[in-house]
Amino acid sequence: MSGRKEKLPKLKAPPSLDDIRRIRAAIAPYIHKTPVITSDSINRILGCEIFFKAENFQRIGAFKMRGALSAALTLTEEELSKGITTHSSGNHGQAVAKTAYLLGVPAYIVMPRNSTPIKIVATKGYGAEVRFCEPNIEAREAGVAEVIRETGAVNIHPYNDYHVIAGQATAALEFLEETPDLDYLLVPVSGGGLLAGSAIVAKEFSNALIIGAEPSGADDAARSLKSGVLEKNIEPITICDGLRGNLGSKNFEIIKENVDDILTVSDDMIIEAMSLIWNRMKVIVEPSAVVPLAVIMNDRKRFQGKRVGLILSGGNLDLKNLPF
Amino acid sequence: MSGRKEKLPKLKAPPSLDDIRRIRAAIAPYIHKTPVITSDSINRILGCEIFFKAENFQRIGAFKMRGALSAALTLTEEELSKGITTHSSGNHGQAVAKTAYLLGVPAYIVMPRNSTPIKIVATKGYGAEVRFCEPNIEAREAGVAEVIRETGAVNIHPYNDYHVIAGQATAALEFLEETPDLDYLLVPVSGGGLLAGSAIVAKEFSNALIIGAEPSGADDAARSLKSGVLEKNIEPITICDGLRGNLGSKNFEIIKENVDDILTVSDDMIIEAMSLIWNRMKVIVEPSAVVPLAVIMNDRKRFQGKRVGLILSGGNLDLKNLPF
Repeated sequence: MSGRKEKLPKLKAPPSLDDIRRIRAAIAPYIHKTPVITSDSINRILGCEIFFKAENFQRIGAFKMRGALSAALTLTEEELSKGITTHSSGNHGQAVAKTAYLLGVPAYIVMPRNSTPIKIVATKGYGAEVRFCEPNIEAREAGVAEVIRETGAVNIHPYNDYHVIAGQATAALEFLEETPDLDYLLVPVSGGGLLAGSAIVAKEFSNALIIGAEPSGADDAARSLKSGVLEKNIEPITICDGLRGNLGSKNFEIIKENVDDILTVSDDMIIEAMSLIWNRMKVIVEPSAVVPLAVIMNDRKRFQGKRVGLILSGGNLDLKNLPF
Repeated sequence: MSGRKEKLPKLKAPPSLDDIRRIRAAIAPYIHKTPVITSDSINRILGCEIFFKAENFQRIGAFKMRGALSAALTLTEEELSKGITTHSSGNHGQAVAKTAYLLGVPAYIVMPRNSTPIKIVATKGYGAEVRFCEPNIEAREAGVAEVIRETGAVNIHPYNDYHVIAGQATAALEFLEETPDLDYLLVPVSGGGLLAGSAIVAKEFSNALIIGAEPSGADDAARSLKSGVLEKNIEPITICDGLRGNLGSKNFEIIKENVDDILTVSDDMIIEAMSLIWNRMKVIVEPSAVVPLAVIMNDRKRFQGKRVGLILSGGNLDLKNLPF
């Protein structure tokens, strides 16, 4: 028996607000309700009122914890007992590892050999078995397939999964309940779990326009929304290591219907946004987390005088290798 | 007329708890009530329950704001109108500059030529006139004397001043009201404003043992408490740029009577403590702020199972020049 309190039902379609509320209640014992923080000086500099949902203070330092838990809680006891697995060089791997630890079941994380040492140490620190592979998608998927053959563990996809999307949506639900009357909600987008989940909540729950924020060097989501067809990053070049992946198909379907726009911004502006938050707010955020703020800095006029909500997605990065 | 709401009475003796309460009310409109934060993982690692009063989130990024305001609010309108001055390479200079800005009066900050550019920019950013001097105490004091001759501005001492001590004490008052039943309160010590103020509050208000935390490379306060005579740092060598100064005489009188012990710790452990807070808590603290945590890491047995309060004194440092 796992240490789980409740098994969640499986979702066969995009989550509704009710599904997300149920999942929020189920994951609540395992996660932090993160604070909404503000900075007078950043508001003064940018001429708008910004509210930051600080998921960098979430367990494992990123919102990914929510989706991994949400997916794991839908598994049967028999499935859970064999453990959970994923391939990841980043926050999702840590989230799956920590989820397994909290539920008292095994975790097998396939990591590319060139993952940063600090992330390897962190993943092992949560008690996961780390298996290394060559740093390409085929080797990563083969690594997970081998884990599944050997152990019967269940694969938890980082984003292309309704349960994961619903889990990430709980961050927006907490945020919008605490911070009403936003004009805009800005969310970073890569695989699209956080953006799709947030968009479902925002459309049902508020009048805020919902905008994805993406580095111009990995702009598949912006191109997909424009063309109406799921596009890919060919050679993503961005400092945002969390945003180099491709938009998921399930995520895209939700985003097409619920997201108002996706704006892109240069790495230079992303680094400037990161420096602003570190210096003015004294909180540690990773490059991927500040893309929404960079979008505002890049297009101040649009946001002038508005109430804007931003999700600071995470705070995990190599402190020995900062971009400023 | 300055923008001040209330003139505080002058203190002729160490502040009482009532004085500190009055000053807290007077400075409240100008400062942030900073949060008390915790970290499950640091508690698990160190085997005690730690509460951090996050003065790194204070205006100007450090508790120094409290003392500068407290001192400025005791000045007459005529005194205030001529402005306030100090010499500082660090947080106190920024605090005096910001205080003057908030009260609508001039500030003249004498800074050593070799101050870090980021601190010069920050001080100017608060609207102060910055005057440069050679980096030694005689030149700094001569610079302030010249400002006073020219402008009639009032000097605000960084620590050897009852009003400053009472202002810093308000951090401990907020902290202990919110976090009762502490076994220990640990506070960094240099000039001794924060430690002396905190000790007055803690002795009147709680049963916590009050302990100063000092880098071994600048241990004048520890030596002074041991010998009973005010000792000096000859050649302070520590990464904690905020803690290289000497204990003040007024501060020492209060500390002798109210502080239970002063513990010292190596720079290596201070850097380790800083890394622990940055990585686990995702908040930016300067080296001086983590000396209390380093003291706990250095003497885990003493604090095992205890409820310990720590004041994170500030978060200002050069992000281009980190010690890890």
